[in-house]
Amino acid sequence: MAQAPIYERVALIGLGLIASSMFWAMKRGGLAGEVRGFARSAETRAAAREIGLCDVVCDTAVEAVADADLVVLCVPVGVMAAVAAEIAPVLKPGATVSDVGSVKRAVIESVGPNIPPGVNFVPAHPLAGTEQSGPRSGFAELFDNRWCLLVPVENSDPEAVSRLEALWRGMGSNVERMDADHHDLVLAVTSHTPHLIAYTMVGVADDLQRVTDSEVVKYSAAGFRDFTRIAASDPTMWRDVFLTNKEATLEILGRFTEELFALQRAIRLGDGEHLFEYFTRTRAVRRGIVEAGQDTDAPDFGRTGKPR
Amino acid sequence: MAQAPIYERVALIGLGLIASSMFWAMKRGGLAGEVRGFARSAETRAAAREIGLCDVVCDTAVEAVADADLVVLCVPVGVMAAVAAEIAPVLKPGATVSDVGSVKRAVIESVGPNIPPGVNFVPAHPLAGTEQSGPRSGFAELFDNRWCLLVPVENSDPEAVSRLEALWRGMGSNVERMDADHHDLVLAVTSHTPHLIAYTMVGVADDLQRVTDSEVVKYSAAGFRDFTRIAASDPTMWRDVFLTNKEATLEILGRFTEELFALQRAIRLGDGEHLFEYFTRTRAVRRGIVEAGQDTDAPDFGRTGKPR
Repeated sequence: MAQAPIYERVALIGLGLIASSMFWAMKRGGLAGEVRGFARSAETRAAAREIGLCDVVCDTAVEAVADADLVVLCVPVGVMAAVAAEIAPVLKPGATVSDVGSVKRAVIESVGPNIPPGVNFVPAHPLAGTEQSGPRSGFAELFDNRWCLLVPVENSDPEAVSRLEALWRGMGSNVERMDADHHDLVLAVTSHTPHLIAYTMVGVADDLQRVTDSEVVKYSAAGFRDFTRIAASDPTMWRDVFLTNKEATLEILGRFTEELFALQRAIRLGDGEHLFEYFTRTRAVRRGIVEAGQDTDAPDFGRTGKPR
Repeated sequence: MAQAPIYERVALIGLGLIASSMFWAMKRGGLAGEVRGFARSAETRAAAREIGLCDVVCDTAVEAVADADLVVLCVPVGVMAAVAAEIAPVLKPGATVSDVGSVKRAVIESVGPNIPPGVNFVPAHPLAGTEQSGPRSGFAELFDNRWCLLVPVENSDPEAVSRLEALWRGMGSNVERMDADHHDLVLAVTSHTPHLIAYTMVGVADDLQRVTDSEVVKYSAAGFRDFTRIAASDPTMWRDVFLTNKEATLEILGRFTEELFALQRAIRLGDGEHLFEYFTRTRAVRRGIVEAGQDTDAPDFGRTGKPR
């Protein structure tokens, strides 16, 4: 890439799936000069050094952020405030601090007050992931054609927001801006509640003594395996999501159980018409997702044989 | 294939995803001499004739099953008994009648009494599917490395069961035999309840006025789209599943809501430890499924970019 990088120096705090994918995506696009990385765990830092993840892997967060034009917090939401407090004294004036947390109101409330005057705070949330985690799980294409939601705070500098947007577009994302509360509600619907439900269903299957674990595993292609995929994500991250997006999640859960009870009643009463109408309606939502390029309707996602 | 076919004449009643995939899989393996097909809808029969689905497409079920060595009922569970009653008078002595229904106790109770003496009844259930339906949706590889459960009834002739097993193995499946009630419970866990939950979650998202449909679609990659995939299956088929596997589904649903309420309470109380432990346990189930070859852990199932 002949074009000048968007940021001269970037610091990634936390080196899991998202941070490692950001590194490879920035390298692919020539979007950053030097990228420094830090992870709390010595094992993660060693893995990063081994695979060439980041230009420099630092042993402290303070070392990683010194001189950085962009600092991205890629740690679980529950520890972001502590990290922000730790690095605040060494943040460069004019630098931008961002994050990749799955909730935004809680991040703004806990990280925001730690950001010193003269430093821009631009929260963000890339909607992309796999069931893998850790420094070895990243890849440059993770964000391609996925959405990244920017959630500027009241005093976010417009220039700083645009620059961060350019970075995310350079990494392959589509970018949208959104208000924090609306973000948290949309994500409660499209991500947080589905994850909780998937975790629950997998837990039920695992508990059931009349059905063995090996049966659950063997016959999972009948539908269950799609739940296990989303129930395999990082437990720390998800614990923090539910603790910090409590209100919206509980609201959507309330609606969910209401509708589930109505369907349960239809089953009990043998009300086939109710079931048929409900199941017909949900098909249309699926069609919209495939048409919007957010999924493929290829048989079995190409997991097994190819279609004729 | 130089080897002799397993059945000289096969009749497929109903020409949707499963029947059409069976036809292509039988052709691939040289497993059947002549395959006749019948579908109630003239549109489906015309589509089948157009794409060469079945050696002969018949205008009546009676015509399709005359002389058949194997008749497979590939219609929704709710209409199987009526179809069985219609074809019973012309079934060839020594022939085998099977089905591909997702529930087995109800099929045995409704179809069984219609099978004349001298004809073998061997219920079956291939655990394979895609979100597509109809005569154009089938492909030869659908059953490869998937399970087919045979549920022989009390007086099923062992030779007839073995022959049907050979057919399914020839179509790429692994085969297991199972008791009808256990089948219905295992499927309630691995398929029926997950589908109901997915339908519910998609319905909730569709209902929510504070989040627009386009937002639900745009941001679906965050987890929700895996629910929409399984909530896009054929509504008639799923209505019949819930009406005919009522008891087991309601039992598993009861356990599900119990566990969901416990997690909901942990969220409300901020009990992070409970959440973390639960989410850690469910990861192990996922690992088992990937190891058993029933899914891939490739990022995003290769929906988008390839990993490095």
